[in-house]
Amino acid sequence: MEVNADDFFKAAALDKPRVTNKVGSNVTLINVMQIAGLNTLGISIARIDYAPLGQNPPHTHPRATEILTVLEGTLYVGFVTSNQPAPNRNKFLSKVLNKGDVFVFPVGLIHFQFNPNPHKPAVAIAALSSQNPGAITIANAVFGSDPQISDDVLAKAFQVEKNTIDWLQAQFWENNHN
Amino acid sequence: MEVNADDFFKAAALDKPRVTNKVGSNVTLINVMQIAGLNTLGISIARIDYAPLGQNPPHTHPRATEILTVLEGTLYVGFVTSNQPAPNRNKFLSKVLNKGDVFVFPVGLIHFQFNPNPHKPAVAIAALSSQNPGAITIANAVFGSDPQISDDVLAKAFQVEKNTIDWLQAQFWENNHN
Amino acid sequence: MEVNADDFFKAAALDKPRVTNKVGSNVTLINVMQIAGLNTLGISIARIDYAPLGQNPPHTHPRATEILTVLEGTLYVGFVTSNQPAPNRNKFLSKVLNKGDVFVFPVGLIHFQFNPNPHKPAVAIAALSSQNPGAITIANAVFGSDPQISDDVLAKAFQVEKNTIDWLQAQFWENNHN
Amino acid sequence: MEVNADDFFKAAALDKPRVTNKVGSNVTLINVMQIAGLNTLGISIARIDYAPLGQNPPHTHPRATEILTVLEGTLYVGFVTSNQPAPNRNKFLSKVLNKGDVFVFPVGLIHFQFNPNPHKPAVAIAALSSQNPGAITIANAVFGSDPQISDDVLAKAFQVEKNTIDWLQAQFWENNHN
Amino acid sequence: MEVNADDFFKAAALDKPRVTNKVGSNVTLINVMQIAGLNTLGISIARIDYAPLGQNPPHTHPRATEILTVLEGTLYVGFVTSNQPAPNRNKFLSKVLNKGDVFVFPVGLIHFQFNPNPHKPAVAIAALSSQNPGAITIANAVFGSDPQISDDVLAKAFQVEKNTIDWLQAQFWENNHN
Amino acid sequence: MEVNADDFFKAAALDKPRVTNKVGSNVTLINVMQIAGLNTLGISIARIDYAPLGQNPPHTHPRATEILTVLEGTLYVGFVTSNQPAPNRNKFLSKVLNKGDVFVFPVGLIHFQFNPNPHKPAVAIAALSSQNPGAITIANAVFGSDPQISDDVLAKAFQVEKNTIDWLQAQFWENNHN
Repeated sequence: MEVNADDFFKAAALDKPRVTNKVGSNVTLINVMQIAGLNTLGISIARIDYAPLGQNPPHTHPRATEILTVLEGTLYVGFVTSNQPAPNRNKFLSKVLNKGDVFVFPVGLIHFQFNPNPHKPAVAIAALSSQNPGAITIANAVFGSDPQISDDVLAKAFQVEKNTIDWLQAQFWENNHN
Repeated sequence: MEVNADDFFKAAALDKPRVTNKVGSNVTLINVMQIAGLNTLGISIARIDYAPLGQNPPHTHPRATEILTVLEGTLYVGFVTSNQPAPNRNKFLSKVLNKGDVFVFPVGLIHFQFNPNPHKPAVAIAALSSQNPGAITIANAVFGSDPQISDDVLAKAFQVEKNTIDWLQAQFWENNHN
Repeated sequence: MEVNADDFFKAAALDKPRVTNKVGSNVTLINVMQIAGLNTLGISIARIDYAPLGQNPPHTHPRATEILTVLEGTLYVGFVTSNQPAPNRNKFLSKVLNKGDVFVFPVGLIHFQFNPNPHKPAVAIAALSSQNPGAITIANAVFGSDPQISDDVLAKAFQVEKNTIDWLQAQFWENNHN
Repeated sequence: MEVNADDFFKAAALDKPRVTNKVGSNVTLINVMQIAGLNTLGISIARIDYAPLGQNPPHTHPRATEILTVLEGTLYVGFVTSNQPAPNRNKFLSKVLNKGDVFVFPVGLIHFQFNPNPHKPAVAIAALSSQNPGAITIANAVFGSDPQISDDVLAKAFQVEKNTIDWLQAQFWENNHN
Repeated sequence: MEVNADDFFKAAALDKPRVTNKVGSNVTLINVMQIAGLNTLGISIARIDYAPLGQNPPHTHPRATEILTVLEGTLYVGFVTSNQPAPNRNKFLSKVLNKGDVFVFPVGLIHFQFNPNPHKPAVAIAALSSQNPGAITIANAVFGSDPQISDDVLAKAFQVEKNTIDWLQAQFWENNHN
Repeated sequence: MEVNADDFFKAAALDKPRVTNKVGSNVTLINVMQIAGLNTLGISIARIDYAPLGQNPPHTHPRATEILTVLEGTLYVGFVTSNQPAPNRNKFLSKVLNKGDVFVFPVGLIHFQFNPNPHKPAVAIAALSSQNPGAITIANAVFGSDPQISDDVLAKAFQVEKNTIDWLQAQFWENNHN
């Protein structure tokens, strides 16, 4: 099979702003589905847009570490460590990033980015250490799965009433499936 | 350095029932912190106890796949796939496991086990594909981190009022830190 | 392709005792051949039954470390280190394991488990750090291969007479091929 | 050891233009030397500045694949495949990249980026699949090493006169060591 | 730390014949213990000498595949597959190798080389896919470990009388420890 | 699928001298294309012939470390480190190897071997830590690619006149494509 430059290329328009979603963000990921030549090569790249006060809500990448730099605006970012012994048990590490700053989100940890500016959008470029990093938006996966997780299970896990769970499920189902 | 059988051994008492926590479970993990000889060897093992109606609440392992078999009782188990395209987008896969059944939770995905029996405990043995798999209990990491994640961020991510977030944070902080 | 819970499940009946073989053991391994969803995930699990005075005879796993816990009875277990310099040259590390104890057999090393109790069976759960760990029972591979290894080679390697080798080969051939 | 957000952060000023070198480029790499928290995590990020008609000259990364997106200007980029059988033997794959385009340079292959615009600078963000990717600028390594490679060897390898090699060595030694 | 050519070099005298051991072979392995620069690089090399009718007896490398070429003489080589389903269960694959032939022994499988010539020595160069491949000579590890494995265990595993085991242990202990 | 000894064998004639090429060498590599059983096993082997004053010119292996031993003659060998900080920046490490000596060329670094003897050939056996290591001969890839790299780019990178580049390209194109 003859290889070709287009096997390693994508006219991805990562320079163009995107319309943001309900929570004020939009992730444009270029991975092995867009560039076949990435197969076995262990990396991908994304542009992330943030509306004023928008966020890329708490999520994890099951197969990748993420490194991010801010192109425009300001981001308040953070991740939470795992259930390890004190003093690092579920520790929240956060930072305000300005243009040109770099931050790392280690593989599998829950992290988010938030644009604290009520007037201006923000933009970041992120790279991930997998050709197919995956993403799990916590609220969507927990409350908006198809089919839904039993509200008995979730009510106890989150220590809220079942009708709160039912209400959350109705909301996130709509997010994910419409 | 002379190696010794005790470098590969732990009197772990995995045959003994454990007192379960607030949500009705207890995970006894034997990893490289307990058995130094596991270093670089990529595996660990755990006993999990479930009270009647208890659960090992939604969590992920950032660095390991888990394979589990039921020793006693019945478990309702499940995991949610990542944000991939339909028909696998945030799909919830679940199963009722009886004694002797085996189930797999792929690396990094949110999963749980629930004991649906109101009268009897359940017990499982789980193995994980890392000498130090890590565990992130979703509710504890999101709502009970130290310090707490801004309630502005969480209110928007979970689409609830800030005072709901504040109430959840008060609760999970107590779980994690007392 | 739509994924399904059954891709990650096996009704393996690991709670049920097995009839043991000629040397008094039976390994029920659940690997990627039984659970297709294990593909690329690097782990498998097994139940091992031991008759009174039965053994899982000296063997290696070419692609996996094993971690084991005793469910019932007592096991005398051990492994032998490789041809490294003294004091670790072909060192035999052994331990008596009681119910609930955990032991590790590092990748590729020759190990065994023996049930020293003349009256009671024993049971263990073992996990292996590969979706397809492989197993090489030393006596069967050396003396019971198909076709048989030249008795000239084996007589010199084991420093016994050729007719001893021939007798061993007749025996193990039968074990493996009937 | 308590972890801290600063272990995962670098005020890298990747938004700021850099003064370019003799061939018209400047690579600002943020790797594990700048962010200790990247250890074992397999990724790094860089800003690359290109002067008008500047280039990031032919080089390889011995331990990383690179994925690049153009922030400003235009880049003519390419890489050469290895000595494999036809039709892919030493094949040169090239592409003109505009703002927002994405291109991949597979691990270990010789590649370059050139800014064809005689009036305007260009800027790219690149990510690499290693915490310490390494870089080997071909001309500098071959002709500017310390000590210098024998001109007998290089003259034959490059099929030029020894005094041509001597002249190249004088030039690149200066580049590398002053 | 400044690196030096001697960190990547060993005056190994792999061109020189070696005195062979009791079973007629001698393995001269150059690994990370001899060349510190091999650290993390995943390869090692060996010269193997075979006396007339000598053998490198059945052994495994727990952490490496081996590829071998014959420099002098003839070798009868083979390996045995693992306990997989028929038709590959404990299958013995063998070949007579002449000068210049190449053969592969997959990671962890039991293999040997035998010089069938009663008059002439043989020599091979072998390479292994680990900086520290390890070697387990089956007879030495099983019968010559320190301390010795219980003869009850071995008698049943090898289906011979305990006094046969005792005799083997006396012999191989001497091999390993004198 | 039944495996067979021939899946792991190649009658490679590595004992036979080869006709050397224009720069006085010939590499006979046995990799997964010649031996299908090498698949996933991470190693390959080669014989290298050197004419008097011949060389295996500066090249890299994008996916493998190389370990080499001299069978006949003498070799002057070396590699150049990457663009790391002083004192290791583009440092040239070299050594004269006699018969039986061993040397290591780390993954991805530019290296060569040269036979300094004007009268006698030399021979080496090299092993590489990949089933498909790849090879990039620097001069051929840079000056002899198909299609050719723009002479504007190369003239600036190598700091020579464009007509020098054109002449080099004419020469190496012929090497690669005839």
